[in-house]
Amino acid sequence: MALGQFAYANNSNRFLACAPLADQPYAVCGIPFDGVVTNRPGARFGPQAIRAASLMLCDGIHPVFDVSPLEHLGDALDMRLPNASPLPEVRAHIERQATALMDKHHCVFLGGDHSVTLSLLRAAKARHGGEPLALVHFDAHCDTWSDHFGEPSGHGTWTYEAIQEGLVSAAHTVQIGIRSSGERAARDYVADQGGQIFTARELRGLDGAALGPVIGAIRERLAGRPAYLTLDIDVLDPAFAPGTGTPEPGGLTSSQVLTFLEELADLRWIGMDCVEVAPAYDHAELTSNAAACFVWTYLAGRVAQQR
Amino acid sequence: MALGQFAYANNSNRFLACAPLADQPYAVCGIPFDGVVTNRPGARFGPQAIRAASLMLCDGIHPVFDVSPLEHLGDALDMRLPNASPLPEVRAHIERQATALMDKHHCVFLGGDHSVTLSLLRAAKARHGGEPLALVHFDAHCDTWSDHFGEPSGHGTWTYEAIQEGLVSAAHTVQIGIRSSGERAARDYVADQGGQIFTARELRGLDGAALGPVIGAIRERLAGRPAYLTLDIDVLDPAFAPGTGTPEPGGLTSSQVLTFLEELADLRWIGMDCVEVAPAYDHAELTSNAAACFVWTYLAGRVAQQR
Amino acid sequence: MALGQFAYANNSNRFLACAPLADQPYAVCGIPFDGVVTNRPGARFGPQAIRAASLMLCDGIHPVFDVSPLEHLGDALDMRLPNASPLPEVRAHIERQATALMDKHHCVFLGGDHSVTLSLLRAAKARHGGEPLALVHFDAHCDTWSDHFGEPSGHGTWTYEAIQEGLVSAAHTVQIGIRSSGERAARDYVADQGGQIFTARELRGLDGAALGPVIGAIRERLAGRPAYLTLDIDVLDPAFAPGTGTPEPGGLTSSQVLTFLEELADLRWIGMDCVEVAPAYDHAELTSNAAACFVWTYLAGRVAQQR
Amino acid sequence: MALGQFAYANNSNRFLACAPLADQPYAVCGIPFDGVVTNRPGARFGPQAIRAASLMLCDGIHPVFDVSPLEHLGDALDMRLPNASPLPEVRAHIERQATALMDKHHCVFLGGDHSVTLSLLRAAKARHGGEPLALVHFDAHCDTWSDHFGEPSGHGTWTYEAIQEGLVSAAHTVQIGIRSSGERAARDYVADQGGQIFTARELRGLDGAALGPVIGAIRERLAGRPAYLTLDIDVLDPAFAPGTGTPEPGGLTSSQVLTFLEELADLRWIGMDCVEVAPAYDHAELTSNAAACFVWTYLAGRVAQQR
Amino acid sequence: MALGQFAYANNSNRFLACAPLADQPYAVCGIPFDGVVTNRPGARFGPQAIRAASLMLCDGIHPVFDVSPLEHLGDALDMRLPNASPLPEVRAHIERQATALMDKHHCVFLGGDHSVTLSLLRAAKARHGGEPLALVHFDAHCDTWSDHFGEPSGHGTWTYEAIQEGLVSAAHTVQIGIRSSGERAARDYVADQGGQIFTARELRGLDGAALGPVIGAIRERLAGRPAYLTLDIDVLDPAFAPGTGTPEPGGLTSSQVLTFLEELADLRWIGMDCVEVAPAYDHAELTSNAAACFVWTYLAGRVAQQR
Amino acid sequence: MALGQFAYANNSNRFLACAPLADQPYAVCGIPFDGVVTNRPGARFGPQAIRAASLMLCDGIHPVFDVSPLEHLGDALDMRLPNASPLPEVRAHIERQATALMDKHHCVFLGGDHSVTLSLLRAAKARHGGEPLALVHFDAHCDTWSDHFGEPSGHGTWTYEAIQEGLVSAAHTVQIGIRSSGERAARDYVADQGGQIFTARELRGLDGAALGPVIGAIRERLAGRPAYLTLDIDVLDPAFAPGTGTPEPGGLTSSQVLTFLEELADLRWIGMDCVEVAPAYDHAELTSNAAACFVWTYLAGRVAQQR
Ligand SMILES: [Mn+2]
Ligand SMILES: [Mn+2]
Ligand SMILES: [Mn+2]
Ligand SMILES: [Mn+2]
Ligand SMILES: [Mn+2]
Ligand SMILES: [Mn+2]
Ligand SMILES: [Mn+2]
Ligand SMILES: [Mn+2]
Ligand SMILES: [Mn+2]
Ligand SMILES: [Mn+2]
Ligand SMILES: [Mn+2]
Ligand SMILES: [Mn+2]
Repeated sequence: MALGQFAYANNSNRFLACAPLADQPYAVCGIPFDGVVTNRPGARFGPQAIRAASLMLCDGIHPVFDVSPLEHLGDALDMRLPNASPLPEVRAHIERQATALMDKHHCVFLGGDHSVTLSLLRAAKARHGGEPLALVHFDAHCDTWSDHFGEPSGHGTWTYEAIQEGLVSAAHTVQIGIRSSGERAARDYVADQGGQIFTARELRGLDGAALGPVIGAIRERLAGRPAYLTLDIDVLDPAFAPGTGTPEPGGLTSSQVLTFLEELADLRWIGMDCVEVAPAYDHAELTSNAAACFVWTYLAGRVAQQR
Repeated sequence: MALGQFAYANNSNRFLACAPLADQPYAVCGIPFDGVVTNRPGARFGPQAIRAASLMLCDGIHPVFDVSPLEHLGDALDMRLPNASPLPEVRAHIERQATALMDKHHCVFLGGDHSVTLSLLRAAKARHGGEPLALVHFDAHCDTWSDHFGEPSGHGTWTYEAIQEGLVSAAHTVQIGIRSSGERAARDYVADQGGQIFTARELRGLDGAALGPVIGAIRERLAGRPAYLTLDIDVLDPAFAPGTGTPEPGGLTSSQVLTFLEELADLRWIGMDCVEVAPAYDHAELTSNAAACFVWTYLAGRVAQQR
Repeated sequence: MALGQFAYANNSNRFLACAPLADQPYAVCGIPFDGVVTNRPGARFGPQAIRAASLMLCDGIHPVFDVSPLEHLGDALDMRLPNASPLPEVRAHIERQATALMDKHHCVFLGGDHSVTLSLLRAAKARHGGEPLALVHFDAHCDTWSDHFGEPSGHGTWTYEAIQEGLVSAAHTVQIGIRSSGERAARDYVADQGGQIFTARELRGLDGAALGPVIGAIRERLAGRPAYLTLDIDVLDPAFAPGTGTPEPGGLTSSQVLTFLEELADLRWIGMDCVEVAPAYDHAELTSNAAACFVWTYLAGRVAQQR
Repeated sequence: MALGQFAYANNSNRFLACAPLADQPYAVCGIPFDGVVTNRPGARFGPQAIRAASLMLCDGIHPVFDVSPLEHLGDALDMRLPNASPLPEVRAHIERQATALMDKHHCVFLGGDHSVTLSLLRAAKARHGGEPLALVHFDAHCDTWSDHFGEPSGHGTWTYEAIQEGLVSAAHTVQIGIRSSGERAARDYVADQGGQIFTARELRGLDGAALGPVIGAIRERLAGRPAYLTLDIDVLDPAFAPGTGTPEPGGLTSSQVLTFLEELADLRWIGMDCVEVAPAYDHAELTSNAAACFVWTYLAGRVAQQR
Repeated sequence: MALGQFAYANNSNRFLACAPLADQPYAVCGIPFDGVVTNRPGARFGPQAIRAASLMLCDGIHPVFDVSPLEHLGDALDMRLPNASPLPEVRAHIERQATALMDKHHCVFLGGDHSVTLSLLRAAKARHGGEPLALVHFDAHCDTWSDHFGEPSGHGTWTYEAIQEGLVSAAHTVQIGIRSSGERAARDYVADQGGQIFTARELRGLDGAALGPVIGAIRERLAGRPAYLTLDIDVLDPAFAPGTGTPEPGGLTSSQVLTFLEELADLRWIGMDCVEVAPAYDHAELTSNAAACFVWTYLAGRVAQQR
Repeated sequence: MALGQFAYANNSNRFLACAPLADQPYAVCGIPFDGVVTNRPGARFGPQAIRAASLMLCDGIHPVFDVSPLEHLGDALDMRLPNASPLPEVRAHIERQATALMDKHHCVFLGGDHSVTLSLLRAAKARHGGEPLALVHFDAHCDTWSDHFGEPSGHGTWTYEAIQEGLVSAAHTVQIGIRSSGERAARDYVADQGGQIFTARELRGLDGAALGPVIGAIRERLAGRPAYLTLDIDVLDPAFAPGTGTPEPGGLTSSQVLTFLEELADLRWIGMDCVEVAPAYDHAELTSNAAACFVWTYLAGRVAQQR
């Protein structure tokens, strides 16, 4: 690399110090919204923190895929969103801007709280033929509550809404890492609707080759169908991702998530988001580093598949 | 779960370890809302943090007023508020709950972001005869913007709204510590409407006896009129109050604010709020300690006056 | 002021936002004492922090046991304890207060440093027929030193004392996670006395089904005997529990501890404590979240067994 | 292991990187004891932190006194103290070790909580002819409570004890910076006994030349009498000293304390302590830097006077 | 302002969210170099942190000067510099890049450690006619050591070098805030050479109008001569600027520095740098906020003068 | 002042509270140099932090090896190094001082950034007969880049340099934990030269007995040859070692590293270093505790082998 290409001097505030978005095939876009979180807020700063952390990846050549997404990627910076408007209006803004981006690019969105995923799925479903999408959902929480503490929507209702609305196919929905408290109806909703849940409990002690059967089951279930990947960073154990709003002990390791991402790279992915990074509770950039690494791995996997 | 059953509102701690609220003359109440802040969120946890910090005051005997508010005080805990509703609905909830409390108690509210003060003024004006109230407003920001970055209301518009709505008398409004960036129309709004502004700049280097003329001017201006005190903790320099959303260098010291509070204790106060304490950015509890000390000083001053 | 009116003991928060203690079958009680720790102090604030963290569990329905302890639980708040008295006096205070609680409730105690467990075992043995109890002891440290750096007792001597005193049956004592430096006589004391030790080293890489043999051995050894559970949070690797006084690298994961707690829920538990949470060294509430989750899991397991 | 072999007492660092203590005229010694603090503990690590911070002073040439204490100073490292013994025993240990040091050196002690000062005054009075000493006491707290929340002694009773015991002459006692809550009998005790109190309130806004009258009054009152200096770091506003156990808003600035120390350097000082530095709550070493600077200023003042 | 123009969405990583540098009259440029700091490193991240903090200034209208520098300003991002090369080579790189920028813009540089100022003065002197420049130097340290602990140059030698090299006129050099330890030859060097020093000690308690005589003396001394402003953030007391490498207690307040900057805005400034912001030791962005505010005030003053 | 008299090198603490270095067989020595790190600096403070953390090991009896290195160990304190000199000069200083120490002691060095290892290998090769050494290299990074962002050397080139220079035998080099981004030529360099790489990916989920085959392969490859151990702390996942300059998610656990160190204790080790501990980014001393534990385990293993 050239003189002064250190992490600390690459301060372009674009993911991986990539170019501004033009006609690259892949786009990154931030959604600085955290208006409906029930515990610790601050995911509005997630996009900034993930981008800053991504600078340490230097030229971005992935050790597994042996490609860099750098030259294929543009950064659309952050969406412009209202600050004091009701959730449906915010969601409409997000959907509109996401639709425009998806029209021209394979997109990765940086949250923001998890409520934004509903808008992204609306845009993605429209973009990809209108059939309900397959969904891989990493999370400590099922996000299938049918209400938000008495209000209709929040960051814990979008999966329920997406299935009810036909945005995703329940039968092609896989949840990974679920473990929070909650009533059975919410906890088992995806399975009750025909989907599959791998709780954190079921994944304890499994990594590397030992994760093979789980990955095989996911690949088989989703084979061929356009699939969307949503990664709530709180799927990680709080030791690996302290900087999030609703941390739940007993979560996955960074290694486990990387194994999933690497091994499932050959699915028919149509987009991704990484949400709930709340930098105010992060230290030593643990959480934003992990998020940047996951997004980079997803993008490198895409680029490798397209070769 | 029911409205407002969030993690951050389930707090049963009480200010100064006082009794639960019954028929004490003074009440403390938390407003865990931070839905319209433009920078660092987290003031929803302000009430919890201020209460925890207040425990260090032990039996609460104030060294200047030589009384303790402890036996005269009850804690109403936190208001139950929606999490994902538009601001006007949240404000209606706050006004309703504040009205009920003010009906029976002299109240101090713990914010929360500064947007809550509009509701409190609505309740207070109704409670105190319907005449526009006098207002003493400590803040780094004028909070007189006529819009919130294109939306009608936020945490920086309430003073403008309160004057427009006739909740407070501009002529009897005093702002202390103002210093943030902003257009002249907002910065000078209170003065343009006949009120008085002591910018942080004008107060530099003045404390103790040297603050006498300033305090005299305030006392004279407000004499006899029912006055409401709103204290945005960011009036303090960030060195004294790091735990807030929009810190502005060049602010007041804790000592200066204490001088104001002690010297103005004989005004005709009808209520107080202390807002914008954002614990995620606090360290060593600097900010919540300062807020607790200010609230305690106000209450001790009230009790001393009533003797 | 009266005994135990310190700032750190004036906490009126309640675990899981449960009701104040009345005649619920289960009780939580804090022991804000850290008078005999040899390295980083601050476990006096453990009870406060664990309670605050527990609020994120919302209605407390456990995903494994599908019950909530919420309606069955009361919080006795913190014990009132002297601050500057010698350890034997403090221990007498604890024993007296614990005895009164155990008389009416199945109790979980939140420490405090590990020295408090001796008092709790004294009370528990008396309550449960006077036979030496079975003991499951999670810890990085064996706590079987025969002296405390030249003094008779500290937070590292209570297991030795409890066996010497006949409070627990060495043959029915199991230690899990032990790994600190120390002389062989202390490290192997429990095994030398007929008990069983699973060092952290022996548990490396074992979780989920792979922990089955270990759990089977424990269940077999303790079968039918009234058993007390003491969980020193430093059994976790410091990555999972930074907020403790004597962190030891190479520890258990949160997942491993959860596997133990869930799988051993059918033992004849008579009480639990969770100790050594030192919030001053915690960040992002990692440690208090883990502790709250463990206590909740224990309580949910109890409630599920009683159905 | 032997007495006082705790992690926190095994510190071999030396203040200002001076030589180990031999026959230098000045000695520094740590007292790693925080057994009777009522709020945030951790002052046991104060000596280590102050020494580490002192290293930034390089060759130690003071800009006001134009001398360095470096060549005149030895570091006696930390006292060996019991960890779980009652306060009177600890105090006896401290007194014994302090007496031995004072026999040969002009000493500065690094606390530790403020309870240690009673032992130091016992040793100092004996060493300096047995007459009650003059005392200059910087603190946010009066430390004249007649009991410690129902126990006889703690870190807030030593001034009362020292006056009662005749260790210091009340008439020659000056308190500076007092401001905490507390009953009048304690707050005014020193004045009631004939001494002088400059509350933080009285010092607001006074620094540099404006402090002249206060300093003059102190010099006049203490003139010629052997005087002991005790500096509780919480005399500083928490903005300047966050790392302490009982921070009180509205305190002195570092500048004000330096003005006192520099201007009073010509008094007949016989020893000093700097106490209540609790590093766990410090950030960026603010508090230990301030403490190191104050100790260095005292020592440089001594050396300058002796030339 | 328009929708979504909040601080947290303006993540352009340019100071004040200004445009990329083109032909604007004013330029900001980062110098991410911290290779010769003697204590805590990390000033390489100063430029990033100051830019991020500047986003809170929104549209940048200054409350004293009633102008915004926003439309007049471009950001040249960070200089490209070697990481492992000797200081003279790094300085040559800086000088070359600074020269190119100064050729077209009035520049403000964001450090980096203070060693960079020598290069900037070399470029500035050449640009402004070759006469030795006037210099206003805010710092806790005199930076006039004649060697760097045995090496020729470091971050504490540049003032000495600049005077020796004839880059600045000693008679027109003013130092403000000096207070660190150090030998007399270094401490008094600027005064010995005919310049003026206002130590932090001399400025204690002076702010607002009370600073008038000091400001008058500076204005008189520098009148008419092209003057360069270098602001080492450690001139602030560590309470106001914890995030720096060599913090020195007893420093200036943010208010005092603002008074200087505002009152001296009418001097013939030709450029500025703000150095030694080390974000790893910052908390709540105190230090980078202060630095951003100072740079903004300088720029607003420039723009106001040019109207 | 003399060479290397910086604040950060004036540390007189000693590892494990051992004696000053005299003629003990084992020596610890700090190398406070971080001049060529590309991201977060601060490893200059690594030696201090590791020593402080080691104090918690008390008498140092290792639970696996049942010996203590305490009586066999001396601490040479920190090397005196220049601060602003080019890397080759610094390396010459290190080599000279290391050579002198290795002459008389089996040495463990505490970094400092990883560039220092080249000097240590030069000294070690000379000391051990001049044959290329075997090397076990724990790291997230391959450190085999052939240049340092355009400069010849940095902290990521030393392995390349050591192989090129014949300091180590590529065929007897084993890398463990490698996972960062980077071009294939660098990533596979050691394997391409005949050595062996166990990436972090290959080690996922393997610990305890499951690591047996890996350990067997290493033992077989290195059997009998003098081997040097270099442990870059960033081999750990950032959850276990946040305090480092270039953290890479997906790393090893502390347990895995301990398994390697314990199981490979019988190799023919001739020296060790532990590098890249950057305390400014550490919290709760996680990273320095882990490093101290690893160094202690190595030393205990050595002592146990020598019995
Ligand atoms: Mn989610
Ligand atoms: Mn979640
Ligand atoms: Mn406000
Ligand atoms: Mn404000
Ligand atoms: Mn224990
Ligand atoms: Mn333990
Ligand atoms: Mn005191
Ligand atoms: Mn005090
Ligand atoms: Mn400087
Ligand atoms: Mn400086
Ligand atoms: Mn390395
Ligand atoms: Mn590395």
